[in-house]
Amino acid sequence: MICVLAGGVGAARLLRGLAQLVPPSELVAIGNTGDDLVLHGLHVSPDLDTVTYTLAGLADEAQGWGRREERWTVMEELERLGGQTWFRLGDRDLATHLYRTQRLAEGATLTEVTAELVARLGAPLRLLPMSDDPVRTRLTLADGREVAFQEYFVALRHQVPVRAVRYLGAEAAQPAPGVLRAIAEAERIVVAPSNPILSIGPVLAVPGVRPALAARRDDVVAVSPLIGGRAVKGPADRLLAELGHDASSAAVARFYAELAGTLVLDHQDRDDVASVQAAGVRAVLAPTLMSDLARATELARVVLAAGPASVPAPDPA
Amino acid sequence: MICVLAGGVGAARLLRGLAQLVPPSELVAIGNTGDDLVLHGLHVSPDLDTVTYTLAGLADEAQGWGRREERWTVMEELERLGGQTWFRLGDRDLATHLYRTQRLAEGATLTEVTAELVARLGAPLRLLPMSDDPVRTRLTLADGREVAFQEYFVALRHQVPVRAVRYLGAEAAQPAPGVLRAIAEAERIVVAPSNPILSIGPVLAVPGVRPALAARRDDVVAVSPLIGGRAVKGPADRLLAELGHDASSAAVARFYAELAGTLVLDHQDRDDVASVQAAGVRAVLAPTLMSDLARATELARVVLAAGPASVPAPDPA
Repeated sequence: MICVLAGGVGAARLLRGLAQLVPPSELVAIGNTGDDLVLHGLHVSPDLDTVTYTLAGLADEAQGWGRREERWTVMEELERLGGQTWFRLGDRDLATHLYRTQRLAEGATLTEVTAELVARLGAPLRLLPMSDDPVRTRLTLADGREVAFQEYFVALRHQVPVRAVRYLGAEAAQPAPGVLRAIAEAERIVVAPSNPILSIGPVLAVPGVRPALAARRDDVVAVSPLIGGRAVKGPADRLLAELGHDASSAAVARFYAELAGTLVLDHQDRDDVASVQAAGVRAVLAPTLMSDLARATELARVVLAAGPASVPAPDPA
Repeated sequence: MICVLAGGVGAARLLRGLAQLVPPSELVAIGNTGDDLVLHGLHVSPDLDTVTYTLAGLADEAQGWGRREERWTVMEELERLGGQTWFRLGDRDLATHLYRTQRLAEGATLTEVTAELVARLGAPLRLLPMSDDPVRTRLTLADGREVAFQEYFVALRHQVPVRAVRYLGAEAAQPAPGVLRAIAEAERIVVAPSNPILSIGPVLAVPGVRPALAARRDDVVAVSPLIGGRAVKGPADRLLAELGHDASSAAVARFYAELAGTLVLDHQDRDDVASVQAAGVRAVLAPTLMSDLARATELARVVLAAGPASVPAPDPA
């Protein structure tokens, strides 16, 4: 069984590659819910949905979020009403949020609802939210104002400097059922090439997750989300720099050093290898840009082979 | 100023007729919220929306609910997910519920949200919910089970006998701001041809409304929702019979006798006139079937003229 700590798009692409190699029952993702928000009364879980849609082949890959062949009648009408339309929810996507919100109101856990959505949409993996309890990523901007993740990411288009990040509610949160066990039992644990602070950080903030990973450090392979010191998508590079790290794969290695024995980084970052190793982390060079499924599958292959012991090729049963 | 106690379709049609004769600032409807429900986390107010959509010219008149030129992408997707689709919410209609739910979550009152929707959609009236507090119509079925209004009306298609009706929360509810004043100050108060028990009953159950109406009894004109002992739409006839009234306009007169000095009833019910008068209610015969806007406007004209003193034709300024 392969366990992946997952944020949004980068994680979804690597998971899609892994899904070419690993049977659904053996592929477990632990998804970030720090981006979740309640909007119009609806519980929206952007990262869980990006993973589900991508693996089900339903994602708008060009746009990087939402459903393909999406329609926008509801948002058009909401605009006419003067409602909040800064966070665009397509018609098909909205059905997911209606479903989730109704099921949660009926008493289902986010874990249960997520499993139902994965099954109904046909995503070939097991997807666990990091926690059934609310954890909310909040950012303190340079001007001292604290904003919710989506206000920073969507409304402000992450074009503002950040002074601090916290994960509200994390201290009181429990890992969702199956999370610690998946980490404990996986042959390989993968930290996806997601934003270390905004996407993986919330998962690591859930009590019990860091020690569980540290106990498996030799089998934990992180993939750097930076190529040539830049994020493929989003503000990971700027954010790392703003919060006192370097915008480099070496800094990513140091960020994860206590938890991940191996870092996969792009060939472009070969100059970082010495620094990665100096942090006590094995460095594995590979092409990490997942511009199509073939490249994502290649990276998945590297990740499965990247630890001190490579994972045996699974029986494609 | 004309004040109308309003349910759904029947009230909306009469209001549309009145809006041909009365300027928007002088036409106040007090809407039933006993049908309101929270579904998928969204606050749905079916009767308020039917009135708003109808007066804004946006209603699906043939269907009797919802928006015209409606689209159904969200429901189609929700069906695919195995979600609850028994209560059909079209894409355009959903925007209303998203807007309302978001504004309520921000601390706006239902009165405020309703005024915003009326203004944005361009409905030519003032529409007040009967209360900003939750009042929920609940029905005890013949088998003893108690169900919410929409379960009876939509899921069970009102094809089950009812033993009792109550308005949960009514005792603790306050009339919404402006409700009692509209009743006190109106030149004419109209009880729309809505279901007396399911649509007008909840309004009357809000503390203060009955005495306010009783104090204006001479100026209150009710319109019977029955023609020839049958409801134009919905279960009003059966329900009146099941709850120990007759399914007749005479029974409607008795039902409202303490509150309404006049009843407008259809020519077909001319045999009921003596019984209406025996209940101490003036009887005014008129064609009450509002099959088009011209007929609705004619009925509106009758209603304005039907009291002991007819309302002067308003200045169409």
